Amino acid sequence: MADSRTMQVVRTVDAIRELVSAARADGCSIGLVPTMGALHHAHVSLMDAARRDCDFTVVSVFVNPTQFGPNEDYERYPRDEAADLSTCRSAGVDAVFLPAVGEMYAPEAVTAVRVAGLTSGLCGAFRPGHFDGVATVVAKLLNIVQPDRAYFGEKDAQQLAVIRRVVIDLDMPTEVVGCPTVREESGLAVSSRNAYLSSAERVRAQSLYAALQAGRARILSGERDAESVIGTMRSVIDPAGSAKVDYVSIVEPATMQPVARIEDPVLLALAVRIGGTRLIDNLTVDPSADSL
Amino acid sequence: MADSRTMQVVRTVDAIRELVSAARADGCSIGLVPTMGALHHAHVSLMDAARRDCDFTVVSVFVNPTQFGPNEDYERYPRDEAADLSTCRSAGVDAVFLPAVGEMYAPEAVTAVRVAGLTSGLCGAFRPGHFDGVATVVAKLLNIVQPDRAYFGEKDAQQLAVIRRVVIDLDMPTEVVGCPTVREESGLAVSSRNAYLSSAERVRAQSLYAALQAGRARILSGERDAESVIGTMRSVIDPAGSAKVDYVSIVEPATMQPVARIEDPVLLALAVRIGGTRLIDNLTVDPSADSL
Repeated sequence: MADSRTMQVVRTVDAIRELVSAARADGCSIGLVPTMGALHHAHVSLMDAARRDCDFTVVSVFVNPTQFGPNEDYERYPRDEAADLSTCRSAGVDAVFLPAVGEMYAPEAVTAVRVAGLTSGLCGAFRPGHFDGVATVVAKLLNIVQPDRAYFGEKDAQQLAVIRRVVIDLDMPTEVVGCPTVREESGLAVSSRNAYLSSAERVRAQSLYAALQAGRARILSGERDAESVIGTMRSVIDPAGSAKVDYVSIVEPATMQPVARIEDPVLLALAVRIGGTRLIDNLTVDPSADSL
Repeated sequence: MADSRTMQVVRTVDAIRELVSAARADGCSIGLVPTMGALHHAHVSLMDAARRDCDFTVVSVFVNPTQFGPNEDYERYPRDEAADLSTCRSAGVDAVFLPAVGEMYAPEAVTAVRVAGLTSGLCGAFRPGHFDGVATVVAKLLNIVQPDRAYFGEKDAQQLAVIRRVVIDLDMPTEVVGCPTVREESGLAVSSRNAYLSSAERVRAQSLYAALQAGRARILSGERDAESVIGTMRSVIDPAGSAKVDYVSIVEPATMQPVARIEDPVLLALAVRIGGTRLIDNLTVDPSADSL
């Protein structure tokens, strides 16, 4: 699709609906990659997956204010529209939806989508209201674009679990596709927020993935006690006890509920503040796997 | 459509989606009439409106447990599937969707749609959680059927306002159509809950519409003070002060917020318990109208 026509850039709900309707009338399946911009090669991997599965790929770029807390980085979140459009064009995207905040939220809007349980722990405990904002904006984007499939990174594991539940619980006719975390050579998970890191902080940030790997190694060596594995992970991130660890947790992957004994596949998940930058990462580990 | 084929009755999400997809592939527009069954001629007026506007009319029949409070009438709410199907067949409906509770709500479902503001007063104040249940099940039904238009009665004015907001705020691609309240000769609004009334209670229930008419008359005679009009309405419903009035309110129709001075069109709304039966009714009044 993308090779035969120019990428289209639209800013209104009506305009993106019109493009998608036309593509659908041509018999195209529709893929959506929702993003907050500051696009990097992990986003491109989502676009590649969408293009592989679908005939018409839409990328949305919207820094959603309702998922940021009052003391978070909404204002300074990186924005570079020209670079984002260039990335989308190179990736062979068919349409980019770039709404302004006023196009997405009327002043009189009062509706929110809330996901209970799943959102109480991990990042939800440190970012009150964050996942309501995510669930609501994703429901809106899915209703606007009505894609056959929507693509999200596994790096944001709790977000992905929340979105899967919203789509199932509200019977939305879209398949949610999780895509593997993309990492730098060092193991650092690719993230738009890595742009905030100094080069010294970037080195310290490698401890997140190192901790996940250490946790995995202990589980595959036979350790089944979650607290013990968490202790190991904490000691890797923060041997001197001076880093700001929001959490290091071992949870059941679908419900995000803490696990005490590790018998089934689990998610090792952590959030750490490196300087002023909050980074998250996670790794799924199957204790029955027989090797490192 | 309905004349050329038999009405289809399905009980699963997959089956109704298949019927709707087939109708859409035939070029049909889709109308949905969501109901809780116990169908009466006010429901038939919604079906008639849907058939007038749309090529393929779906009626859903689902007594939604999440919109009933713990001390409300979920268990005794009237259910008569055979009569409902007969009513739908006579009305020329194309498909009836009759899901069981387990088909609509998985045990692990945790997502709710919430509408703030609009739901705090009137029935929302007396039925905590009710409108979350309504908003969530309507979002689900709209996502399952994906109708071009969905039809709701104006008798449930706050519900209609909530549903309009959900559809706008979540960008759902459905037009919400409000249909006029259907009344008996006596003025009593037709409702499934009228079946609970004894014949003596049915006479007393006429005071609801009489009160709305009295309020309208005072406004059209020039009264602009809402408290004064409310006093008149209360005296009509309950001259002896012994009836159980949940509320008699004058509100702005879109936001359901109370009005002190009546300058623009307002909604007169009331809820009264007649014996064990809670009845609601409402009337929109434009103070600039120049005659009764």
